[in-house]
Formats: sequence, C-alpha cells, structure tokens
Amino acid sequence: MSESPKKSALSESQSKPSSGNVSSQSASRIRNFRKKKVSIEQLLKDLLQGNKTALGKGITLIESNQLSHQKQAEQLVEGALPYSQKSIRIGITGVPGVGKSTFIESFGSYLISEGKKVAVLAVDPSSSVSHGSILGDKTRMENLVKESNAFIRPSPSGDSLGGVARKTRESIILCEAAGFDVILIETVGVGQSETTVHSMTDFFLLLKLAGAGDELQGIKRGIVEMADAIVINKADGDNQKPARDAKLEFNRALQLYPAKESEWKPEVKLCSALYNEGIPEVWKMISEYREKTAQNGYFEHNRHQQNKFWLHQTINDHLKNRFYNDPKIKSALEEQLQLIEENKTTAFAAAKYLLSLD
Amino acid sequence: MSESPKKSALSESQSKPSSGNVSSQSASRIRNFRKKKVSIEQLLKDLLQGNKTALGKGITLIESNQLSHQKQAEQLVEGALPYSQKSIRIGITGVPGVGKSTFIESFGSYLISEGKKVAVLAVDPSSSVSHGSILGDKTRMENLVKESNAFIRPSPSGDSLGGVARKTRESIILCEAAGFDVILIETVGVGQSETTVHSMTDFFLLLKLAGAGDELQGIKRGIVEMADAIVINKADGDNQKPARDAKLEFNRALQLYPAKESEWKPEVKLCSALYNEGIPEVWKMISEYREKTAQNGYFEHNRHQQNKFWLHQTINDHLKNRFYNDPKIKSALEEQLQLIEENKTTAFAAAKYLLSLD
Repeated sequence: MSESPKKSALSESQSKPSSGNVSSQSASRIRNFRKKKVSIEQLLKDLLQGNKTALGKGITLIESNQLSHQKQAEQLVEGALPYSQKSIRIGITGVPGVGKSTFIESFGSYLISEGKKVAVLAVDPSSSVSHGSILGDKTRMENLVKESNAFIRPSPSGDSLGGVARKTRESIILCEAAGFDVILIETVGVGQSETTVHSMTDFFLLLKLAGAGDELQGIKRGIVEMADAIVINKADGDNQKPARDAKLEFNRALQLYPAKESEWKPEVKLCSALYNEGIPEVWKMISEYREKTAQNGYFEHNRHQQNKFWLHQTINDHLKNRFYNDPKIKSALEEQLQLIEENKTTAFAAAKYLLSLD
Repeated sequence: MSESPKKSALSESQSKPSSGNVSSQSASRIRNFRKKKVSIEQLLKDLLQGNKTALGKGITLIESNQLSHQKQAEQLVEGALPYSQKSIRIGITGVPGVGKSTFIESFGSYLISEGKKVAVLAVDPSSSVSHGSILGDKTRMENLVKESNAFIRPSPSGDSLGGVARKTRESIILCEAAGFDVILIETVGVGQSETTVHSMTDFFLLLKLAGAGDELQGIKRGIVEMADAIVINKADGDNQKPARDAKLEFNRALQLYPAKESEWKPEVKLCSALYNEGIPEVWKMISEYREKTAQNGYFEHNRHQQNKFWLHQTINDHLKNRFYNDPKIKSALEEQLQLIEENKTTAFAAAKYLLSLD
C-alpha cells in the first residue's frame, strides 16, 4: 500500500503526472489558500476563462468540510451557475475489469480531437476506503491527462454517498462554467452509486464484456433499465463473435422494458477501447440522443426533474439527520426499540411517541 | 360498475356472502358502534377468544380515519400485542391472472384441514380506484369464505401505500391475537406493494405461470430476489411440460443470487391450485423454512428488523409530511423551484434556504 499513497483530489487538477508526496502538497495548497484570502470574485473570473488551476481550487473548496470554505464554495457555485448549462453529462458504469478507464481514455481523446473540452469526474463513496480506486490511478489515462482540454478529478472521498453526490453535482457546475462541454462521470458497478450517477446525468452508458456470464446481473440490479446504451467493450480478436452474440442477447433483453419517457430506444454498441474501434459510433449515438431529446423537450425536462429530485433528497436527508441526532430522541429511541423487542409496543406507537418529543 | 358496488371492508369480516347494499350496512354498523360506546376491554376479550365479529370490528377501528376510532384502535392493538406472536406470516404475490385467489382458496382450505386457523389479508393501495380488485370479489374464494377457521379481509382502501401498510400490519396483530396462526397477505404484482408486503412477512412466495414469457420480469423488478419460493401454478394438463421447463429456468436464475441472510435456499415448486395438486408440498416447504429459521435465529431477528424498519419508515414519513405541509414552506418551495428552473439557484442552496425557514 505504501507505493500508492492516497492521492489528494487536488493533485489531479494538474495536467501532468504528479510527483512525490501529493498529500502534503495538497495540504500546503490549502494553507496558501487561507493565507492569501483568495478572492472568490477573482477565482470565478479565472474559472470562467477556462483556467484549470482555478477550477481545481474551486472544487477543492466544494470538497472541503470547513465552514468558511463551504461558504466560499456556495458563492462560487452561485456565480458559476448561469454559465453552466451548455454541456452533456454522461454517466459511465460497469463492473471492475470491464475497461472503464481505457474506454474513458479512448472516448475522451476522440472527443478532444473533435474539438470538445472533456471533464472526467467520479462518484465512488468507497474511495475513502479504497484510496480512490477509480480515477485515482492516473497512469491508466496517461494520454488524456496530458491534454490541455481535459480535466480529470477523482471522486471526493471520506464521505457518504449523499455527500459525494452533492459535491459532484456542484463540481459539474464549475466544470461547465469553465467551458467543459462533455462531462463524463464514472462510477463503479456496485450498490447505490449507479442510481446516484443516473440521477445527475443526461445519458447513462453501461459498459459490458461479452461472455462474462453476467448478462442477468445488470438486469437484476436494475441497471439495464436505466441505461440509454449498452456498450460491449473488448470486442476485438477472439472476442468478436461472443461480443456479437452478447449484442443480440442484450437487444432482446432491452425489448422487455417499457418505452422510456425520453422516447429514446436504448442501443447496444460494440467497441474496442484498446484499439479505438467503435468509439466515434458511441459519440454519434449520444449526439443523436441529445438532438432527439432537445427536440422533444425531454433534455431540459429531465434536468429540471433532477434538480427537483436533489432538492427533495437534500431536504429529506437533513430532516432525518436533525431528528435522529437530537440527544433527547437518541436516548428515547433506544428505550422504544427495547420495548418493541420485548413486544410491549408497536413500531407505529413508538414512532408516534418519538415524534411527540420533537 | 353499478352491479359491483364498492364493498366495505366490514362486510368481509362475516363468513357468508353478503347481500344487498353493503356500504349502508357498514355505515350503520359504525353508527351502532358509536351509539353503544363499545368497550375496548370487551372487544379485546371477545377477540382473544377468537370471535371473528370482534376481530372484524377491531380492524374497522384500525381502518377508520376518525380520531376517536384511532385512539380506540391503538388501545386495542396494544392490548392484543402480547398475544400476537405465534403465527407465520406469508406474503403471496404474482401478476394478475396467475391464479392468486385460486391458490389461496386451495392452500387455505388445505391448511384448515390440517387444523390451522387462516387469516387472509391484502395490500392493494389501488383498491380505492379499482374497488378492491383483490379479495374484493369473495366468490373467487367461495369455499374458504365458508370456513369458520378462515377470516378474509380485503385491502383497506382510500389510502396511500404507507397508510395501507400501517393498517395491514396492525390488522395482522389483531388476527394473531384472535388465534389465527397462518396469515396470508396477498398483493398484486405491480409497483412498490410487493416490497411493502415483503417487509411485513416471514416468508415471501412468488406465484408464476409457465411459458408466460415473463421469466425476466420478476428478476428485473427485484421480486425474484425477495422470494423464498417460486411456485409455478397451473402446472396441469398440457401445461406440465412447460411448467417443468420453467422450473429448471427459475432454478438456474436463483443460483445467480447471493446466499440469503436467512440461510434459506429459495425453492421452485409446481402446483395446480385448481386441482389441489402440489399444495401440501408448498406447506411442507414453508414448515421447513420456519423450522430452519427458528433454529438459526433468523425468524425472530427478521421480525425485529422489520419492526425497526417500520419505526423508521413511520418517523421519516411524518417528518416529511410535517415539513412539506407547513404553509410557510409550501409557498417558499414554489418560489425556490421557480428559481431553480430559471437557473438562479442550485437544488442544494434552495434546500438549505427552505430548511432555514423550518
């Protein structure tokens, strides 16, 4: 483990491989920040001009748990907001080993060659444990990371999924205000983080392998239902025939689902990220999606719905935290749980009593 | 529609088919109730002696939205609670047409022949719209309904799923206190009601048809994952071969899932409810489940977990309702949603502001 020290999020905002002790570098950056009493107006100005250092600093403020930083972050995000809408946000998921990094490297490089500015973010609430398993290792995207029109940032760490979600959503706004017009949000194919990423993106892409025997896994976990496209990666060499078979199978599976509100019919594509094959076709598909949903109004509608969802999500989380963290409730809850266990009260009577204390 | 007037829940508590205008009958029953100032002590006493009329009256109190009835219901449920644990609660789901009523008729009659007392409840939050599509039509269980050891009650209606869930859970307690030792809880194979029933039962049974081509549907919706058994109904006549094939397929699908906390390995059974075939085997399986989970402690553990779940569920629902029903919040929420729509604030800033008003 000592070979791979926990990388600070900040280090990623630089476009060349970092050297040496990143954590202490990041700590000193934050100290400088405080010393200079950096002006948020200036930071916003730099950011709007596409300055990646300013963008990295802004995201560091968003990710900080310090109150003064949070206030600055709020100010910054609010200032960036009017400039944040001209992007497409693409969620990318898939189980470990499916080749997410290679896909993003290949797809991102292609987009840049097409004149796009590409930001890559990640949602991985486990990153505080796994030391940033996704995007943490920049060497896996060594070409993309050198591009001046690419910005790569690993998942904010040390937080609940709710916290990671808020920070990522606010980071998206800053990236967009800095002129990044394609935002790729990578997540791992486990747990709730896929649903979270789905609820903050315009297009949701599921990466798959042929013959991995996990066709049913995605269906089971409800991921196929969310997908706007299934891209079967590593469709090269001996894998081409199994990949075509898998394509047929997924196409059949997709027909089981009711039509989407977006009126978009999810597609199955083959690609080889390693050999840069099938990559332009993926972008063509996403462009078609964007055009179609812009025309039928779904694109805007969906973003509004997502905003509403996050508004309610945030409120509900706060209400629960406030209630359960009240010391009066905490001790009474213990008592009531005991009474329930002894079959002396019902869940509903106990709830009613606890609410009467609030 | 005039041929099938909305059936009052109360009418179902009688063991013979009702005649004529049930709603007015039920209304007069409630009036009598009030007039007589029925003693809850007496009702509880009758109920504990297995009196089905008292049980029906008790459930009517639980289902009433009148405050005085609710207080009486609370008192009754609390009194019944210590007597309510000696049952097995079985959730039964399946899409319309799978033969749920026929299965319950056949299974329930078998259980009664084995000396059991069987209560049949339902969770169908749509029943206020569909006029009680499940259990509403008693003629579909015409034998069971005549049994003195059977108690059939349709879903409480005119309520949200949360409301229906609370009422059903409290009704279960009364049924158990009245000596019913097998509680069947039927639900329709759509939406959230299956998850709800799963979270209030000990054993969850998914009814299926062979060759209906919907094998993936249950997997997709996460129902197969919850099932302790898949019972393929109508495995008779020409259907026997397809039923055996479906059994193989479901057995294969079940292997995809991780081991259950209960350590129970879900089984696939064939039955023909119409011809009473395979029914004893279903009960044998459930008895084995019960024995196994009693031994390894899961049975009790699961009921405690369910109680905790419902405690938190109830509290969270109340917290949300209280917040969003505050007139001050209501109008401010409108404003904030408008600001979000105009891209002038973020979901998180809006949430923070709204919470500051509370």
